[in-house]
Parts: sequence; structure tokens; C-alpha cells
Amino acid sequence: MTETASPAATLVLLRHGESEWNKANLFTGWVDVPLSEKGRAEAARGGQLMAEQGVLPDVLHTSLLKRAIATSELALAAADRQWIPVRRSWRLNERHYGALQGKDKAATLAEYGEEQFMTWRRSYDTPPPPIEPGSEYSQDGDPRYAMLPPEVRPATECLADVVVRMLPYWYDAIVPDLRSGNTVLVAAHGNSLRALVKHLDGMGDEEVVGLNIPTGVPLRYELDADLRPLQKGGQYLDPAAAAAAIEAVKNQGKK
Amino acid sequence: MTETASPAATLVLLRHGESEWNKANLFTGWVDVPLSEKGRAEAARGGQLMAEQGVLPDVLHTSLLKRAIATSELALAAADRQWIPVRRSWRLNERHYGALQGKDKAATLAEYGEEQFMTWRRSYDTPPPPIEPGSEYSQDGDPRYAMLPPEVRPATECLADVVVRMLPYWYDAIVPDLRSGNTVLVAAHGNSLRALVKHLDGMGDEEVVGLNIPTGVPLRYELDADLRPLQKGGQYLDPAAAAAAIEAVKNQGKK
Repeated sequence: MTETASPAATLVLLRHGESEWNKANLFTGWVDVPLSEKGRAEAARGGQLMAEQGVLPDVLHTSLLKRAIATSELALAAADRQWIPVRRSWRLNERHYGALQGKDKAATLAEYGEEQFMTWRRSYDTPPPPIEPGSEYSQDGDPRYAMLPPEVRPATECLADVVVRMLPYWYDAIVPDLRSGNTVLVAAHGNSLRALVKHLDGMGDEEVVGLNIPTGVPLRYELDADLRPLQKGGQYLDPAAAAAAIEAVKNQGKK
Repeated sequence: MTETASPAATLVLLRHGESEWNKANLFTGWVDVPLSEKGRAEAARGGQLMAEQGVLPDVLHTSLLKRAIATSELALAAADRQWIPVRRSWRLNERHYGALQGKDKAATLAEYGEEQFMTWRRSYDTPPPPIEPGSEYSQDGDPRYAMLPPEVRPATECLADVVVRMLPYWYDAIVPDLRSGNTVLVAAHGNSLRALVKHLDGMGDEEVVGLNIPTGVPLRYELDADLRPLQKGGQYLDPAAAAAAIEAVKNQGKK
């Protein structure tokens, strides 16, 4: 009956809505692609859910990518909470997709075959080939990463790499806000949020590979005094929509 | 020829675009009114001007009011700078308009006469009557001000009061960002920006009363090592639009 314990802190995870490249079926990673109209609507709906259920963030953390930032802005506008403090970090960015960034997913599948394709997409510790320096979809010269020494700037990442670079931000920036008793909203990406959920729920490397977090549906974790979830997996603010989205992803793989 | 000195820092001031209550001719103050469609377009245009002229903010400061926050979001989206760090403070809020908040400007003019009306609107040190606690347009119970002890929460303000409460934020939050060599964007309001410009340009109490800062046109100040303007009054990124807007405000008074 751990669910009945009194939470010490509330964490809300929000995966950005559909981007223009999700729609176009391209690998995105660190390429800074805007939300589609559908994605903007998903974000506003996420904010409405927060408002309706009284899950009102006191502080916001985002990645440096505009699809997560715009999602947070639209959601907070819908919840009338635009005024809360904001912090941003590259450590909440999507997984860097290496040489696959900007490539068509179907063409990549055809070129490399399903086994290689699924390894890059879903293995825990096999990254795609690194992106070529200076190539079209690298982030060379991007001012938002100018403060990062080259050895810490990824040229490709697997999910294990994301866990390693995300966790310092969890401990140093998000945890102190939770310890202050705030409701904390993290607006980020499929893989940076999988990394965080893996940590929260104590998932194994193989288990997390099967985890899918739906877009635009806030996922609430009530945490105890040690910042462990009172309920493993948290609670989606719209459980039916979340379940349908997860089912749709599963069926995608079967087509 | 102080204009040829090399600037130590760049400050960009951006007054929010038209709000729904500007359009409806109501006193706004601390009431949290959204931008109108025209205001949203003004904000995006402000960001385009920054992008075209290479005036790219490294850090953003906003008030706690959604018309300034949305203006900054739309401007930074247009300039592709959504990812920069953000800080917000009630010290950048619009002047609190006291008992006039939510009142129709024309009706107020008719009720109190032009002398009293203009004193409340334009005198340096005469505030309107304080707002009644618990009245419709007070901010009692607003969570964004919950951390402010009652003695620091205004019930009305004159421009002199805004100078006094704004300057600590200038020295403690904005100046350190300028000292770090950043281009700093401040997205705020007619009166909080007048207070800041008064300080920067060393304007007297009577001079500032005649100062009008147009909406949506970024105003750039190049500052020297002592954070004094290289050019008094700064430079609007669209001088013609700024001049036309200032002329229009002057003519308003003559009608």
C-alpha cells in the first residue's frame, strides 16, 4: 500500500508533441526542429490536463531544443503558469542520433536492414555511427553548445550515454527543486525521459528498451522522502490516451 | 564622439505588444492580461528585427506577467534563440495601477476630470488610490506573489515607486549578466522600462514623465565599462517605426 504514503514531492514529465520531422519520418536527435501544428495542439492539451487536475508546476526544466521548449510554453500557457522559473540544459536533450540525423527512417531501414536498424533504434548500448564534423546536421558552431568542451559534446549516443549525461542534471538541478517542496515539470524528449524513468523506477537495461512514453500526456510521479516513486511507472494524467498511444507504437513495429 | 567607443555590454529592451486590455482601453497594471493578435505580431516582428540585425540575446529577463513573457517567447522564436537562459521577477512588472486596475480609461477620465486623470497617468510621484483588498482586480491569493511579504507587495504605485523596486533587480540580476559580456534582453512593460531608461540615461523626474517607449520595437543600449550608455536614449532597431509610434502617442493626448 505504498500508494497511500504522503508524497514529499511531485515530478511531472512531459514529452514534446509531434515535430515536423516526426511527421516527415526523419531521424532528428539534436537537430532543432519545430513542432508541427499537431504537436502544438498536443502541448496545449497537456497543459489543460494539468490545469483540470490541479497539477500545477512551480518550476520548469527543459532541454535546449525548441520542440521541448515550445511544448513547455504552450502547456504552461494553457495551465496559466507561464510565470514560473525556468532552467534549461543540454543534458535534457534528445539522444544524439549520430550519422543518422536528418536521414529518412524508411530509407535507412532499406539500406541497413532491420537488424541493424532496430539495434540503432532500440539497443541500450549500441550507438549509431558518429556524425561527421561539419556535416549538414551536425551542431558544429551552434552557439547554444559553445560552452561545452569537445570531449563532452556527443557525436552520437546510445541510451546508456543519455543516462550518464542526464543524471548529473537530475541530481544537481532537479532534485534540489524537488527537495524544496516544488512541483517540478520536466519538458524533454523520448530518450532523455526514458533515461529518467529508468532511474526513478529502477529499471534494468533490457526493461527500459521496451519503455515507450507517449507524447503530450503529462506523467506524474509522486515521490517519497528519498525521491523514490510511491507508485512505479507514475500516473498519466490521461491514462486512456497514454495507453492508446503506447499500443499504437507497439503495433507500428508489427506492420 | 562617444558612439565610437567600444561597448562593454549590450542591453536590449523590449516592451510587450498590444494586450487585450490595451485594445479595450482598460487600466491593466498587475492584472495578467494576454496579448492581442496584433500584440503577438508585434512581438514576432521585434524578434525578426533582432535576427536581421544580428542583435542576438544570450540571456533573457522578464516580468511575471504573461504579456511580457509571451512577447519574449514569440520574439525569441522569430530570432531562433528560444534556448537562452531565462529569469523572471515581479520587480520587472508593470506599475501597479491601484484602484484603477480593470477600469475603463474613458469612464475614469469622465468621472475624475482631466487633471486628476493625467496626474495618475503621468505624474512621477502621485499614485492612484490603493486597490481594495479582495477586490476583483487585486492579486490577492495569486501564487506568483505568495513569497512576497505584505509590506513589499504594492497596492498601488507611482513611477517613483517602480524605480525603487526595479533597481535592486537591475543591480543584482541584470548587471551581473552584462558584466559577464552577455547581450541581455529585458522583456517588460511601459513603466518598468521607463524606470530603467531613467536610470540608464540619468533622466530627471520631470524629464522621464515625457518619455514614451514604443511597443514591440527592440531598443538597444551599448554600454561602457561602467554600464553607462555610449549613446543617450539608445538605438531602436526600427527607428522609423519607433518615431511614428512615439508621434502617435503624442497626438493621442491632443485629441
